[in-house]
Order: sequence, then structure tokens, then C-alpha cells
Amino acid sequence: MANSTIKGRAVIFTQGGPTAVINASWVGVVQGLMLNRDIQDIWGSINGIDGIMNENFVDLRAQTVETLENISYTPASQLRSTRRKPTAEDNARMLDVFRKHNIRYAFGIGGNDTSESLDIINDAGRAREFELRVFHVAKTVDNDLMENDHTPGYGSAARFVANAFRGVSLDNQCFGGLYIGVCMGRHAGFLAAASALGRRQPDDGPHLIYLPECDFDLEKFARDAGDVYRRLGRCVIAVSEGIEDATHTPVLQVLSAGGGLEKDSHGNVQLSGTGALADKLVEFLKDRLEKEGAAKKLRARGDTLGYLQRSFPDQSPVDREEALALGRFAASCAQSGNIDGSCAIVRASDNPYRPDYRLVPLKNVAGKTRRMPPEFIGPKQNDVSDAFIRYALPLIGELSPVGALDLTKKVKF
Amino acid sequence: MANSTIKGRAVIFTQGGPTAVINASWVGVVQGLMLNRDIQDIWGSINGIDGIMNENFVDLRAQTVETLENISYTPASQLRSTRRKPTAEDNARMLDVFRKHNIRYAFGIGGNDTSESLDIINDAGRAREFELRVFHVAKTVDNDLMENDHTPGYGSAARFVANAFRGVSLDNQCFGGLYIGVCMGRHAGFLAAASALGRRQPDDGPHLIYLPECDFDLEKFARDAGDVYRRLGRCVIAVSEGIEDATHTPVLQVLSAGGGLEKDSHGNVQLSGTGALADKLVEFLKDRLEKEGAAKKLRARGDTLGYLQRSFPDQSPVDREEALALGRFAASCAQSGNIDGSCAIVRASDNPYRPDYRLVPLKNVAGKTRRMPPEFIGPKQNDVSDAFIRYALPLIGELSPVGALDLTKKVKF
Repeated sequence: MANSTIKGRAVIFTQGGPTAVINASWVGVVQGLMLNRDIQDIWGSINGIDGIMNENFVDLRAQTVETLENISYTPASQLRSTRRKPTAEDNARMLDVFRKHNIRYAFGIGGNDTSESLDIINDAGRAREFELRVFHVAKTVDNDLMENDHTPGYGSAARFVANAFRGVSLDNQCFGGLYIGVCMGRHAGFLAAASALGRRQPDDGPHLIYLPECDFDLEKFARDAGDVYRRLGRCVIAVSEGIEDATHTPVLQVLSAGGGLEKDSHGNVQLSGTGALADKLVEFLKDRLEKEGAAKKLRARGDTLGYLQRSFPDQSPVDREEALALGRFAASCAQSGNIDGSCAIVRASDNPYRPDYRLVPLKNVAGKTRRMPPEFIGPKQNDVSDAFIRYALPLIGELSPVGALDLTKKVKF
Repeated sequence: MANSTIKGRAVIFTQGGPTAVINASWVGVVQGLMLNRDIQDIWGSINGIDGIMNENFVDLRAQTVETLENISYTPASQLRSTRRKPTAEDNARMLDVFRKHNIRYAFGIGGNDTSESLDIINDAGRAREFELRVFHVAKTVDNDLMENDHTPGYGSAARFVANAFRGVSLDNQCFGGLYIGVCMGRHAGFLAAASALGRRQPDDGPHLIYLPECDFDLEKFARDAGDVYRRLGRCVIAVSEGIEDATHTPVLQVLSAGGGLEKDSHGNVQLSGTGALADKLVEFLKDRLEKEGAAKKLRARGDTLGYLQRSFPDQSPVDREEALALGRFAASCAQSGNIDGSCAIVRASDNPYRPDYRLVPLKNVAGKTRRMPPEFIGPKQNDVSDAFIRYALPLIGELSPVGALDLTKKVKF
């Protein structure tokens, strides 16, 4: 794909749901572009592609080194975001702006929707004979992009989920009973799977993990939870918001009367930002286990981990470093004369863990979703595999120490 | 209250909802008791007073120093817990166990219910002429105990809430719209108030904070939120789960058909462990602001911070140190020949912040609830005061750095 370079301005924008390290990604791009003499100005578009259409730009070269450094530690995007999927008119408008200001380089940090949008803008540029350099920089807490071993944003979100379940599992140990935590992840279960990463001992929670990659069956769910509860007097469960039954009906819909669920501009049902799934699952399980006689009055609680998963200010150091590095890699791709592509993380080595960065065709990532591979899912479809733990553990950084009471020192009478 | 010492065993137990530092409290008691030659054994009762009645004890002297050290960093109680409020029969049973094993020292780590229980056990001991030394060690994330400047557990929970709102406020900035986060706190608003501690700049969220100390009025709530939304295009709101209207009706009940709400063994309505209040408030506000024409389709999301507030593995270093110190102080009170009392934290100095520890009568804490004093509440009853920020900021430890884009560097055409 090597080609001649071109002189002009660069614009950077962030799309879709933010992450704890999305700022690090665009700061990495800025750091890389600073070294590129073909780049006249580095502009940040405010609110994703909306800012391009409205000519709402911030001069990123004019930010101090200290400001950029601090921003790289800050969750969510200081460039703001949008979920707009560009129409043909939007593309025409963006190309007009690009031409007007001689913007020749566009860096979009986002998920598969963003890669698709960039691919479309690129095609539109070609059709209008306006030479562009267009790069997608992978980002998503869901970890669901093709061609990537994992994506920037996932490590920090996974760290939060691992810590959250470590904490609630210790909490649940105090009283016993059921606890259900619902994690983000519409199609891919990587975030719910990360709940396993805080376990140390065999009976640590979560005891069950349900992923959208597996058909969810309420009867099996009740059996699984009943088995754990009868064995331990407690059961901590992690669930992906996107779980569906064998007919692809969302479980929230199965448990509700259905209808009235809000959809976003991409036509997806709104599963985030409501506590309904956790509450309905808790209600179902409590009722079922009480009827089965597992307990007379079962303590049962549910939480929806919600927006904290992507915005909690506790970056995985590995994730932050990789976000910065992938951003710098994108800038270097532009300098090397590449025309377009998606910047992805691959795994150079497993032990010790080492990442590498690669430019892949935009279309390989655009609009596609990567799901958990079967080897990451446990044989009973209610947990992750050891292979998943080995895969994900290096991505979240070290967790704080935990200790356990030595119960072999019980007082005997 | 100084009195003669007495030889015998000691038992330590933890009651009620755990915190991120409740282990540090009991480890502190153990550390202090190790130095006391009157104490023959140090037993940990498993599951609070249930463990006393069932003679379910762990030998705490037999735990290694390393185990105790690690446990002091671990959230939730390794001694487990219970919410049981002892009956007259329970007290009789406990005194039988105390007499049988010559347990002369009891340390209960808990809230106002625990102080009350200890006071009752103490009275029962006196009535049966069994000499006891009974100490309550303050603990609660709600920060609602009398006689305490603040309680161990609050600093870490407040740290989590401050971080959570710092993150979601930055996240909300990306898209705009409404965000409501519901915090723990049935009668006292200290935890919702802590949402203010992560702000740096005037327009940082949360923009509104509603506390159970103030009568909640849905109309005022809608006006407040509408004002912020029209000014900033966004509005982040923190709410205590315990908010009530002027007639003392819980807001969840006002917004629901009412009825069917679970109660705990102390007769309190279950407000934790369900996402209903956040969802109902979001629904109300979205509907109202859309009708008023503030936006055609308002992005509105809600989270319930839930159990993570008390169990997330990220202790405030100040909180941890104070929990250990208050535990050691309780042990020293026993050694100094005190008969009973509640161990409380007072503030020795404001600037620099310095805590001190004091023994107060059990009855001063037992069954009473401390609420936010009026000087900690903002004049419009929808925020905290600067006095609250000065009070609470030293308790949560340092937060990670954040940076903001310099928007004065907008590109001008």
C-alpha cells in the first residue's frame, strides 16, 4: 500500500462510546504526527464527524505537552464524541470541508462503525478525485473488532470488571445468597468474561458467567445457580447485557412483557443505562430457588455495572501504553506513505506478553463483529476457559493484594 | 470509666454491611490485643453474633502476620457478617457461650445497630453478674454514626463515588444529555455528597446532588435539571437512594405504583440492590424535558452504583490507616481497664488534617442516626457546600490526575 506522501492538514476525531484510554489513543496520534513535516496543522474535531461537518476544530499542536500528558491519563474523550453514521450528504459535506482547509489526513478512533464510516469517506474522496489518507485506530471496551488480538479500552474496562467482581464476591461471602452483576457487551462476551480475572481460589466468585456467544436458557440458568447455591450457600453470577435465548430473543425481552425498548440511531435495542435485566434475573432466580426449597427467604441482589465500566478513572497501565503506541503507529503509517487502513493490535508473544501493531484493510474491520472464540468458553457454557484467563490476564495490569482468613485454624471444642 | 482488668478470652466480630476497610478494623484490634497479657486467646466469630451463638470461632492469634497484613488490604469482612439483631434468647445464649469459654472481651465492629446490640449484651451480662468488657468499633460507609467526625469505611466508599462521578461526568461530556447516578444512603446523604469530590472545574459534574436530608420535590428536580441542561446541553445528577418527599414517602414509591418492596429484618424497605429508582427518575426527567421542548429525543441514562460502593478494592489510604488505628485504640481501651464504650474518630486538626480517637458511651451511638448537618448542604438544597468539600476531601486520598483540552485554542476561520 506504500505510496507517495502528501502535504496538508490532519484531523483527528473520536467516535462512539468512550473508554478509559481513548484520550491516550489520540494523544498518541498527535505525538506521532508532531514528527511529520508533511503535516501542516493537527486539528481535533469536536464531537466526532459532527465537528468536521460544522468546522468545529481545536488546534492540537497548540496544547502544551503537560496538557496532553494529563489528558492521556483521563478517561472518556476530551474531543467529545458522536454516534452519527454518515449519510451520503454528510460525506459530501465532509469532503467539502476537507478540500476547503486542505485536510489530507483523517484519523478516526472508534469501533467497527467508525472503520466503516472511514471506508465510505475514503471511497467518496476517490470518487471526487480528492486525495486522502484515512486511518482507523481501533478502540472499544467490547473488544469485538476483527483483526485485533484485543482493542485499546478493553484492558481498562476488563480491569474494572475484574475488580468489581472481586469486591462483590468478597462482599457476597459475608452474608451468602445470590448476586448477579450485568456487564456491557451486546454481541461479544469479553467484558462479562473479565469477571473471572479477579478470582484467586476455587470457590471465589463469579461462580457462573453467561455470555452472548452461548444460547441462554432460563431453566439451565436456574439449575446451574441452584447447584452452586446448594454447595456454597451463595452464588455470584456475571451476565452479559446481550444474552439471548436460542431464538435470538434478548433475555430482558423474554423476562418482560416486551415492547417499549429504546433504540439507538444504528437501530440497536438500548441495553445499557437501565437496571432492568439485573432486576428481572434476580427476581426470576429468587422466586425459582425459593419455590424449589433451596432457601425460605433468599437474599438476592443485582447490580448493573453500567457506565463505570468504560469511564472509571483507573486505567490498566498496559492498556494505556498500548493506546498511546497504537496512536503513534497510526501516525507513522501516514508518514510511511500508506493511503488508508485500520491500525490493529496483534500479539507478538504470549510469554512474556508482548503486543505488536499492524495496518490492515479498513474493510476487514468495517461493520464486522468479533465474538469470543469457542476455546475461550468453558465446556458447560457457564464459565470461561483457562485459555481465556491466559489471554486476558496480561491486559489488565496488576490488581491490589487480597488476603484470606486461614480457616484451618478453626477453634475446635 | 477506669476499672480493674480481667483475664480471659477475647472475641471479635463484624456486623452489618461490609466496607472496604472493615478487615483493617478487626486486624487493628488483633494487633492491639497481641500486646495485652490479660487476653488468653483472640477468637474471630464467624458471621457476627451468629458465630458466638454457634460457637463458630477462628483462632486469630494463629493467623500469620502476612495473612493479617494481606487481609487488611482486602475489602469486605473475612469474618463474614450478619444482620441479626439479638433477641433476649440470643443474649442468654451468647452469655452462656461467654461463660463456658471465659470470654471476657467482646469487640463488635459495626454501625448503630451493633452498638445497640453490644449495649444490650452488656446489660444482660450485668444482670447475670458476668463481668464483661464490651467495645464497639465504629464502621459504616453511610457515615451516619453519632459522636464520630466520620467513620471507617466512609473514606473508601466516598473515594469510589468521587471517582465514579468524575468518570461518568467526563463520559457524559462526550455526548451530552442526562445522567443520573443513585448512591447508597438511606437516611444520611454523605455518600451522594461525595460525588462532588471529583470535580475540578465549575462545569464539571455532578451538576446537581439530592440528599435525604432535604425534602425531594419532583417539580423542583425537573426545574433544576432543565436549567442545567439548557445551559450546558448536559446534566449529571447524584441522588441518595433514601430521598423522600415532604410527606416522608420514598421517591421510588412516589414514582411507582407502590407496594411489593422487600424489607430487611430491621423493617427497612430494600432500597439497595435494585436499579428501579435510577430508571424511574430517568424516565420521569426525560419525559418531562422532552415535553418542555428542551430536546426532541433526549439522551438519558441512569446507573445505580450499588454494592461496588462498599466493596470495590480501592481503599482510601487515609481510611485504611484510620481503621487500623481505631481497632488498635479499641484494644488499648480494653487494656486500660475500661468496661465498655464505643470507639469513635474525632478530628484533632483541620489543616493539616489529623484524626484522633475517643471512647464514648455505647448509648450515645446505639440506634441513633447522624445526618448531614445543614452547613454541609448548599443553599438551593441541590448541592453540597464548600464546607462539606473541606470536611470530606482529606478522607478519600489522592485521586489520579486528569487533564482537560484547552478550548481557547479553537481554530478560528
